[in-house]
Amino acid sequence: MGVGGGLYRSRLEKMDEEALSYLSSLAEDQEILLDDIEGTMAHVIMLCEQGIIPRDDAAKILSVLEELGEKAIQGELRLEGDYEDVHEFIESKVIERLGIEIGGKLHTGRSRNDQIALDIRLRTRRLLLEIWEAALKLADELLSRAEKELETPIIHYTHLQHAQIGYVSQYLLSHLDHLLRDIERLEGCYRRTNMSPLGACAVAGSTLPLNRELVARLLGFDGLVENSVDAVSSRDFALEALSAVAIMMVNLSRIAEDLIIWSTSEFDYVELPDSLASPSSVMPHKKNPCILELLRAKTAKVIGLLTGSLSLMKGLPTGYDRDMQEGKPLIWMALKEARNSLNIMAKMISSIRFKRERIVEVIEQSYAPAIELTEALIKHAGLSLREAHKLVGSIVKTLHEQGRVLRTLTPEELSAAASRVLGKSIALPPTILEKAINAMEIPGQRMTVGSASPKEVRKMIEKRREMLTRAWAGLKSAEKNLLQARQFFEESLKKIIKD
Amino acid sequence: MGVGGGLYRSRLEKMDEEALSYLSSLAEDQEILLDDIEGTMAHVIMLCEQGIIPRDDAAKILSVLEELGEKAIQGELRLEGDYEDVHEFIESKVIERLGIEIGGKLHTGRSRNDQIALDIRLRTRRLLLEIWEAALKLADELLSRAEKELETPIIHYTHLQHAQIGYVSQYLLSHLDHLLRDIERLEGCYRRTNMSPLGACAVAGSTLPLNRELVARLLGFDGLVENSVDAVSSRDFALEALSAVAIMMVNLSRIAEDLIIWSTSEFDYVELPDSLASPSSVMPHKKNPCILELLRAKTAKVIGLLTGSLSLMKGLPTGYDRDMQEGKPLIWMALKEARNSLNIMAKMISSIRFKRERIVEVIEQSYAPAIELTEALIKHAGLSLREAHKLVGSIVKTLHEQGRVLRTLTPEELSAAASRVLGKSIALPPTILEKAINAMEIPGQRMTVGSASPKEVRKMIEKRREMLTRAWAGLKSAEKNLLQARQFFEESLKKIIKD
Amino acid sequence: MGVGGGLYRSRLEKMDEEALSYLSSLAEDQEILLDDIEGTMAHVIMLCEQGIIPRDDAAKILSVLEELGEKAIQGELRLEGDYEDVHEFIESKVIERLGIEIGGKLHTGRSRNDQIALDIRLRTRRLLLEIWEAALKLADELLSRAEKELETPIIHYTHLQHAQIGYVSQYLLSHLDHLLRDIERLEGCYRRTNMSPLGACAVAGSTLPLNRELVARLLGFDGLVENSVDAVSSRDFALEALSAVAIMMVNLSRIAEDLIIWSTSEFDYVELPDSLASPSSVMPHKKNPCILELLRAKTAKVIGLLTGSLSLMKGLPTGYDRDMQEGKPLIWMALKEARNSLNIMAKMISSIRFKRERIVEVIEQSYAPAIELTEALIKHAGLSLREAHKLVGSIVKTLHEQGRVLRTLTPEELSAAASRVLGKSIALPPTILEKAINAMEIPGQRMTVGSASPKEVRKMIEKRREMLTRAWAGLKSAEKNLLQARQFFEESLKKIIKD
Amino acid sequence: MGVGGGLYRSRLEKMDEEALSYLSSLAEDQEILLDDIEGTMAHVIMLCEQGIIPRDDAAKILSVLEELGEKAIQGELRLEGDYEDVHEFIESKVIERLGIEIGGKLHTGRSRNDQIALDIRLRTRRLLLEIWEAALKLADELLSRAEKELETPIIHYTHLQHAQIGYVSQYLLSHLDHLLRDIERLEGCYRRTNMSPLGACAVAGSTLPLNRELVARLLGFDGLVENSVDAVSSRDFALEALSAVAIMMVNLSRIAEDLIIWSTSEFDYVELPDSLASPSSVMPHKKNPCILELLRAKTAKVIGLLTGSLSLMKGLPTGYDRDMQEGKPLIWMALKEARNSLNIMAKMISSIRFKRERIVEVIEQSYAPAIELTEALIKHAGLSLREAHKLVGSIVKTLHEQGRVLRTLTPEELSAAASRVLGKSIALPPTILEKAINAMEIPGQRMTVGSASPKEVRKMIEKRREMLTRAWAGLKSAEKNLLQARQFFEESLKKIIKD
Repeated sequence: MGVGGGLYRSRLEKMDEEALSYLSSLAEDQEILLDDIEGTMAHVIMLCEQGIIPRDDAAKILSVLEELGEKAIQGELRLEGDYEDVHEFIESKVIERLGIEIGGKLHTGRSRNDQIALDIRLRTRRLLLEIWEAALKLADELLSRAEKELETPIIHYTHLQHAQIGYVSQYLLSHLDHLLRDIERLEGCYRRTNMSPLGACAVAGSTLPLNRELVARLLGFDGLVENSVDAVSSRDFALEALSAVAIMMVNLSRIAEDLIIWSTSEFDYVELPDSLASPSSVMPHKKNPCILELLRAKTAKVIGLLTGSLSLMKGLPTGYDRDMQEGKPLIWMALKEARNSLNIMAKMISSIRFKRERIVEVIEQSYAPAIELTEALIKHAGLSLREAHKLVGSIVKTLHEQGRVLRTLTPEELSAAASRVLGKSIALPPTILEKAINAMEIPGQRMTVGSASPKEVRKMIEKRREMLTRAWAGLKSAEKNLLQARQFFEESLKKIIKD
Repeated sequence: MGVGGGLYRSRLEKMDEEALSYLSSLAEDQEILLDDIEGTMAHVIMLCEQGIIPRDDAAKILSVLEELGEKAIQGELRLEGDYEDVHEFIESKVIERLGIEIGGKLHTGRSRNDQIALDIRLRTRRLLLEIWEAALKLADELLSRAEKELETPIIHYTHLQHAQIGYVSQYLLSHLDHLLRDIERLEGCYRRTNMSPLGACAVAGSTLPLNRELVARLLGFDGLVENSVDAVSSRDFALEALSAVAIMMVNLSRIAEDLIIWSTSEFDYVELPDSLASPSSVMPHKKNPCILELLRAKTAKVIGLLTGSLSLMKGLPTGYDRDMQEGKPLIWMALKEARNSLNIMAKMISSIRFKRERIVEVIEQSYAPAIELTEALIKHAGLSLREAHKLVGSIVKTLHEQGRVLRTLTPEELSAAASRVLGKSIALPPTILEKAINAMEIPGQRMTVGSASPKEVRKMIEKRREMLTRAWAGLKSAEKNLLQARQFFEESLKKIIKD
Repeated sequence: MGVGGGLYRSRLEKMDEEALSYLSSLAEDQEILLDDIEGTMAHVIMLCEQGIIPRDDAAKILSVLEELGEKAIQGELRLEGDYEDVHEFIESKVIERLGIEIGGKLHTGRSRNDQIALDIRLRTRRLLLEIWEAALKLADELLSRAEKELETPIIHYTHLQHAQIGYVSQYLLSHLDHLLRDIERLEGCYRRTNMSPLGACAVAGSTLPLNRELVARLLGFDGLVENSVDAVSSRDFALEALSAVAIMMVNLSRIAEDLIIWSTSEFDYVELPDSLASPSSVMPHKKNPCILELLRAKTAKVIGLLTGSLSLMKGLPTGYDRDMQEGKPLIWMALKEARNSLNIMAKMISSIRFKRERIVEVIEQSYAPAIELTEALIKHAGLSLREAHKLVGSIVKTLHEQGRVLRTLTPEELSAAASRVLGKSIALPPTILEKAINAMEIPGQRMTVGSASPKEVRKMIEKRREMLTRAWAGLKSAEKNLLQARQFFEESLKKIIKD
Repeated sequence: MGVGGGLYRSRLEKMDEEALSYLSSLAEDQEILLDDIEGTMAHVIMLCEQGIIPRDDAAKILSVLEELGEKAIQGELRLEGDYEDVHEFIESKVIERLGIEIGGKLHTGRSRNDQIALDIRLRTRRLLLEIWEAALKLADELLSRAEKELETPIIHYTHLQHAQIGYVSQYLLSHLDHLLRDIERLEGCYRRTNMSPLGACAVAGSTLPLNRELVARLLGFDGLVENSVDAVSSRDFALEALSAVAIMMVNLSRIAEDLIIWSTSEFDYVELPDSLASPSSVMPHKKNPCILELLRAKTAKVIGLLTGSLSLMKGLPTGYDRDMQEGKPLIWMALKEARNSLNIMAKMISSIRFKRERIVEVIEQSYAPAIELTEALIKHAGLSLREAHKLVGSIVKTLHEQGRVLRTLTPEELSAAASRVLGKSIALPPTILEKAINAMEIPGQRMTVGSASPKEVRKMIEKRREMLTRAWAGLKSAEKNLLQARQFFEESLKKIIKD
């Protein structure tokens, strides 16, 4: 028989059932079951090392916890019963097995306040690592696809209207650069998350000689959330994680939007692989970009979860307030959506097909080179930008009305237009004109850093390769630290249990 | 063996597994399993009545669906397997049993687009009814508690500072009035939700002679979402439901905030029943108002879910977009939190204890009657509001510095202060002064409609009782309509199956 | 010299300047300057009628207020100086002119708490009326444009992929139907907004014989927010207004998205009039749909303002809290964006050009009739939906690979495909096949209510015309009530001033 | 006469007036007027250095721009007229003065797309620096106040119930620690913001030999947003700034909430200085913490602005979309609110009075030492935590019922309770008991790092002093870089103009 429902109710009568169900976080705590057990074990190891509880008791408690942990990994430990949360559940299990005199020592020097702060940090840390890795993998994919599509042309749009001719590679690299900044943000957030709150007790610390640093080392933290009030009260690391992934998702949603539009039959620039497309239940001719639509929607969901979390924390009194319990699942939900979206986007980027012929066909019809014609008039005919803009605008208007493409513009027409529009005669060498209105030749003429020119794209690819190597090293180093801490944990545990 | 995963993939190769898991709404569709079966049965009944599918086939299909429905009610129908969603799942089950020639007729004239629009409306309708009822029950509780606390004094706060002396009853009634407006909003939303989209097919309707009105009648809808594009594309009813409950929750969170503050040991105005309070895991002296804190947090969550839903729908192309799938669980989550919060608040209102003695003690010390003293000076000493305000402000300042309560003010001190502050002598009859600074006598002197006076509170209670009767009638009438539709459904079903 | 900054500081020392600037709502209160003066005049009229202040004093105060009101209308009354808000500003102006003995009576029986609640309701009411009218005008525009584009074809999209052939008229009508529901929501909200809070005083009412109903009548309110606590404390009407316009904007943003996509050179279905399009500063060939993009963005802004407002109110103690001051500009901002967006959308709808030839060209190439072919096979060849779906899917795949459009499908190919895919021979009469794959003939074959068929569209237009007449009547009636109240106000005012 | 309204309309007819007003960002662009001029000057200097425009023309243009800049600083340059935005306004002014042949060269090689990206970064940078400094000043204030309140006792709350006895100093330090993390986030964001997008042209770069690095150096940027698509398209730096301040505001709002509650007459722990408190217009006895309430509300506003901004960017096609224009004022609004809130909070922290006597009075009555009594029983009586918890819970319940404070507990009662509750006899030395239940002696007994003990608080203060020195150095270094760039800019400018 469990002691459930009343472990902590020393002073209070029984709780109403509906209230317990409203209150209980048991179902959601499945997420942090392993983290809670791991954190509790570290705490007990420390209690033992500090002589706060006898080695024998510690060994017994740790054995039970180890067993519970293994069951949890096997999926055999279901969080069920009249418990308010995972903490009460685990303590009850230990007391059931070892009695209140030994089992009752489990949480010596801890309260649920620092315990849950610990669990959230452990869980968030795990998810941040997964996201970090998924982001790096997507970055790899963007880079390698950019190399493959080095000179695949595309139209860059502004206002969803043709702007300038560019390359698919440069398009992909622009999102890679965004992602690298996302990764920087994740890294900063990881650093601020990976600090141990344990030892803060209820809120003001303990009169027992707890060794906070030891617990932090056992669990692979980089340091302490030193001030006990801060340790129990703050959730900024979680809000920061939510913000970082919200910003990242917003950008992923923009890639999704591009690809959705490019896969319409009107644009027809890309074709989704069957393995990532959905059919219609009633329209057999359709190949729907559902995954991309869902990614877009999940972005909205993540925005909502961030909003909800900020609103939840707003105006809470300092200290622990039960409101924070409700914040936990919002964090997991958002972080998991982000991780999954990165993974699916990596698949999409690696397997989507760019339809070069169709893109070239559109480019050939496009007035996009107008901007380079304008620049040619500045460079070679001495016009000011605004004069050139006026002139080209007028030419485009005429051609458009005549149903002609820009490329058909003759030197004579140009001269005539200049006289008419600007009242001057201009002399643009025909070969310059020829080059300026030949869409496919334009990128090669670009001279600015980071532009859609073959040379610049190549340079960017080189640099990104190095940047990515450094970015991977950041993750590897964090993972190595955790691995070493894990070994220390295992040894410390063995020393107690085996003795 | 199921046909799962590929029922609709007439043209497409197999889907990637990770993509399917990203895409699948199967887990969430458990929520609408029953609604989907019910809607499908109504559709098949109509197909049969219209002669679109033979009665024999219809009977077979309906029998299988009935069976699936019963299993679902027993909790024995788990939505599992390689299906994208509940629609594919159900159709696959039927085809498994009846073969593609008969089973394949299940969705004749429907697409997942109108089907899911239907399911969401059915599910939202059910939840709205539950919320509607829970809101009415809370309203009942507020009213009946107001009757019990008719003259229990309380301080009304502004800026969390003492403002005026009032009654607990009036406080409760103010929230009842808010709730009555919430209920009006729910009713409007229910009316706009309870319209049938079925028969819109993919988006533009069907060349089959579907009888949309018949399906609507079978399912208890009040009418059609007539335009097929609108039927498939719009989710304003759901956004409206989310808004209505968000506004309602915001107000509930304010009651929660009041009670949290009133249950501090510093205020000590109320005591939570043990059955609705939580203990501390380490601080045995505590009785924590966790339920109220959670309600406050759930409000933030609902705000986030609304935000996410609006953001999700923003800028979607007209028609059905897969983004909308992601919106469904946001709706259920929010509506359920609202329903549960109403229920728990009703329990709280009925069982919390107002500590009259303590409240009176605070009132006796309060400067709150200053406002009525000011009004007395206007009424009986001919001062203008601003003069009186100045005078009383000065008096309060002096008393406060002397550590004296307002009640100790003597007529002489008043006169002296008037000369000093206003440079005039005033004559306030001592009995008037006596009444004006006697906190407990103030409510009885109030003269305005809706004020904290015994007479007004009584009047409001009378009126609210009638308003609540009318409000209940609205719900009852909606429920009756559904019941009658259910009977018509059962009879129509029986006619086909039994034949 | 003004008395600014300290009018109410009877007890407190001078305020810090930075604090005053942080605190002051003076700049934003320009929005409600007129409302505040109007409300104050009504209050003074009532004070006079009730004999609370002498007729002579009332007349003097009302004259000053009238003058201030006229200045305000001329734009000559700037809210400047060391005042916390408009209330203090106005009162100071009156006291400057009439002295504290008379001018100080201005706010007898009122506090800023009920005063600001009144001002917000008056201002929100004005904005709601403007939005209501703008929505009706857009509805008119949608209807009249639908009549003009009765049989202009369009492709209805789902997932931004071709779904079914329809009509521009039906598309426009679907948004009209949404708008009619938006108008219903606005009407409900107007009803709940148009209630008078004045007379609630600080929060608990007054011991002065204020006549709340009279003030309500003078200002054109439909009734009272009876409970004084509710009157001062609640802002649900404003949250409801924000929700209603957020939902409406979300739908407008979807029209905007459609038109942005349709105006790309790839789709090329519509052409924006020059008067509503923007040029590029550097790309002379461009015609940017900036207005539509801004409408989409303003939708996001309104969502943010709603979120902020809900979050602001969450967990506030009952009563008046200064937080609410910060909520006011959020309301105006959102409501004005909504009004302006409706107006601009009406212009867009009336002047955008649908390029029929281009649309027909795309339709002729589209596989969209596949769904009607599927239905023809059900109707005329006895296939089940799922069989037909499979068959048509396979046919579309083959045609697509061969670069052929659906219309080229021959009866022989159909038969052959049936044998291959379903293992059965089918007999679809050639004339049926011919009609089923002829895109332009499809709408005429639709049989369901509300579908994209000429008959149904005509019926819907008829009905909508009546619905719109009724909808206009709702607005007209509200406006008439206000006008009558205005007359009553003027007469009451004249009676006092002229006496 | 200005050329306004049509500078860029080479191809388009005149714009509708209502559309222009809907579209125009002129009013909001006042915010970036100086930034736009500064950025434009740097661009022209570069054009001149690169030989793209002749030195003479550059000198003329720069002189006009310098003059406009001076006027702008004097507040004499009002953004008025038929212009879409500040870019068109400035260019028009220059062309008015110099004619289209020279003035028309102003934007050679630039589009509004990279120009506005630049302006937003310049403006955001300025605001981030102001916020950074304000945050450091608040941090200074928190530290110096913590030193002053080193051993001023306070109760730490959880669930707004008494948890443990602590110090005001530790409370303030906990918020200092949060703020230091906020500053870290701001610093990371500043780094990512301070990169130059200029030279990206419309989106794909230019065929003119623009020197992007030179412009970056002239404007004090740390580097380039290299990829031109990224430069024009991304706003993650702004979303990050909004997130960082939203998280910071959420924490400030918690301080505000604490102080609001502590300044109620029921808690009465703090007294606001008159200079930061507000009076009531009708209740002369009140001293309202309006500033703190507004800060709480502004937090909600900032959350809304972040939400709106994320929602605005969600799903935008890559490239520049006009939606982004609407995002600008949301950024300024949020960042300014944050800056002002930091400043006002610093004033509050430095001048609020902690009422030691009252706090001690409450502490003496509090059951808060129960947790330390529990720990004493663990340490000195060999009980397990759970046993001790049970025992103390029972004792507290009894004392509470008897209306006795914890301090009155006798050794005999303790023993008796142990026998009754645990069925064991325990021996807690009376001096230990005495210390454990003497609230004021508890902090001195705390042994954990970061706890509410005099020793730990002193240690933390020492460390924070150093951390703050380092944090200030970060800001100083950023400011120094900008100063040096400014000198380089001035010299480069002089060289051209003076030549």
